[in-house]
Amino acid sequence: MLKVGILGLGLIGGSIAKSLKNFSKEVVIAGFDTNRQNANFALENKLINYLIHEITEENMDHDVVIIAVPISELKNIFAQLSKIKKPLIITDVCSVKEPVIEIAKQLLGNKLSSFVPGHPISGLELSGPENSEDNLFSDSPVLLTPLDETSKQAIEAVKKIWEDMGAKALIIDASLHDKFLAATSHIPHVLAYMAMHTVQTLEVEDLEYFIGGSFRDLTRVAESSPALWGNIFLNNKKNIIDICQVFIDNLSSFQTMLENEDTIALASYLEIAQKAKFKLKN
Amino acid sequence: MLKVGILGLGLIGGSIAKSLKNFSKEVVIAGFDTNRQNANFALENKLINYLIHEITEENMDHDVVIIAVPISELKNIFAQLSKIKKPLIITDVCSVKEPVIEIAKQLLGNKLSSFVPGHPISGLELSGPENSEDNLFSDSPVLLTPLDETSKQAIEAVKKIWEDMGAKALIIDASLHDKFLAATSHIPHVLAYMAMHTVQTLEVEDLEYFIGGSFRDLTRVAESSPALWGNIFLNNKKNIIDICQVFIDNLSSFQTMLENEDTIALASYLEIAQKAKFKLKN
Repeated sequence: MLKVGILGLGLIGGSIAKSLKNFSKEVVIAGFDTNRQNANFALENKLINYLIHEITEENMDHDVVIIAVPISELKNIFAQLSKIKKPLIITDVCSVKEPVIEIAKQLLGNKLSSFVPGHPISGLELSGPENSEDNLFSDSPVLLTPLDETSKQAIEAVKKIWEDMGAKALIIDASLHDKFLAATSHIPHVLAYMAMHTVQTLEVEDLEYFIGGSFRDLTRVAESSPALWGNIFLNNKKNIIDICQVFIDNLSSFQTMLENEDTIALASYLEIAQKAKFKLKN
Repeated sequence: MLKVGILGLGLIGGSIAKSLKNFSKEVVIAGFDTNRQNANFALENKLINYLIHEITEENMDHDVVIIAVPISELKNIFAQLSKIKKPLIITDVCSVKEPVIEIAKQLLGNKLSSFVPGHPISGLELSGPENSEDNLFSDSPVLLTPLDETSKQAIEAVKKIWEDMGAKALIIDASLHDKFLAATSHIPHVLAYMAMHTVQTLEVEDLEYFIGGSFRDLTRVAESSPALWGNIFLNNKKNIIDICQVFIDNLSSFQTMLENEDTIALASYLEIAQKAKFKLKN
C-alpha cells in the first residue's frame, strides 16, 4: 500500500491523483489545497481519499509527498515540511528547477536529502482539477534534477512513481534543465502571448477570417494563466533573456536574407529546420 | 452541370477536387499537372474526371478554372490562359496576393476582368494529392481580393464555388491581405522554422525529453516545404520584414521587463494577450 500526499490540487495535482488511482488501487491519497473550491472538487469527485487541512506531524503519514503548487507558494510548503520529523520522500512539479533548489536549500532543512526536484513535461493551457486527466503523463517525459545531497533511494522512489503513471523519466542537471526549457517551453509561451499581443495591436477587422492552423497552434498556450507564466518567466529570467536574444538575432538575420533576396541562405536555413523537425519526430 | 478545370493537383488542388465532388455530383473536373505522379494519382483515385496535358483552346472547356500551383509557376499558366479565346472565370489559391495581381496585370490580357484572386486559409504541413482531404475547406475562411477590373459576375461565381465547398468567403483589399497574412500566417511559419533551427544549434541531448505540447504545436508547420515557403516569404518580403521588426521590438521590451522584474508591465502584457486569445475563440 503506497501512501501519497498531494499538496496542491490544480490541473497537475488532480491529474497526478487520477493517474495514481488509474495505475493501482493499492494507493491512498491525501490531498491539500488552500483553495477550498479545488480541495472540495478533488474530494467530491474521489480524486483523493481524504483531505488534510494543515501540514502537521500527524497528518503527514505518507511515503511520498508531491508538491504541485505554483513556485510562488513553495516557500510556505517547504517551511512547513521541514518541521515534520517523520521520514518523507518529497518531490515537486515546478517548471523551473534552479530557483526551487535554492528555496529548498534555504528552507527544507534535514529533509533535503529526501528531496527530488521534478518536472513533468505535460502542461495544458487549462487549469483547475476539473480539467485534470488520468492519462496526462502517459508516454510523456518527466525530468528529475536531484541535488548532490539527494539520496539514491529517494530518486528511485520518485522515478518509480512517475514510471508507474506511464511517464518516461530522465535525470538531468538543474541548470541545463532551466537552459533547455527556456528554449523548448518558455519561449514558445512568450511567442504565443506575443503573437496575440501583436495582432491585437494591428487592429485587424474580421480577424477570424485570417486565422489558419499555424496561428491557432502557435497561440494555443496564450490561454495559459498569466499569473503562473509571469512567475515562470521571472524565475528563469536569465535563460529567457538569452533565448529572446537568440530569436532577436535570428529574426534580424532573416530580415537580411529577405532584404537581399538571398535564396541560397534562406533555403539552407529552412531545410536545416525542416530536417531537425523530421528527426525529432522519428 | 458545372465544368471546372483544376491546374495543379497537389494538396490544395486535390482537396478542391474532392470537396467539389463531395458537395455535388453535378460537376465535371478536368485536371492538369506537369508533375506526372500527381496527375496520375488524381486520375487513378478519381479525384478528377479526366486529365488534360496542355492548356489549349479545345481543352479549356470550363466554367471556372482554379489555379493551384506555387506562385513561381504562375507566370507560365497565366501566359497560356491569356491565349484562350473562350470566356473563362479564373481564380488562384496563392498565399500572397499583390505579386499575383502584378503578374496577372502583365500576362492575363483580356482575361483580367474574369480573374478573382483567392486564398483559402486551410494549408497543412503536408503536400501532394495523397494527403488531400474532402473537408479541408469546411467552415474555414477563404479570402478574395478582386481587382478594380474584376467583374461582379466573376466574383459571385468564385464566391459561390467556395461557399458550396463549405468555406466562408470574405472580400478584402490585396495589400491589406498581404499585411495581415504576414502577421497571422507567415510569421508563425518563420517562428516555427526558427524554433527548430534554434534547438538544433543548442545541441540538446535527448531532445525529445524536453518537448511538450507548446513546442510541438509551435513547430508543427516546420515540416512544410522549404521551397514553397521560401517563395512565399520572398513574395511578401516587405510585410514580413516589418512584422519581424515588430517581434524584435517586442522581444526586446520583454527582455527589459524581465531584467527589471517589472511584474506590473509583464502581467499587463500577458493579460492583454490572453484576453485577445479568448476573444478570438468566442
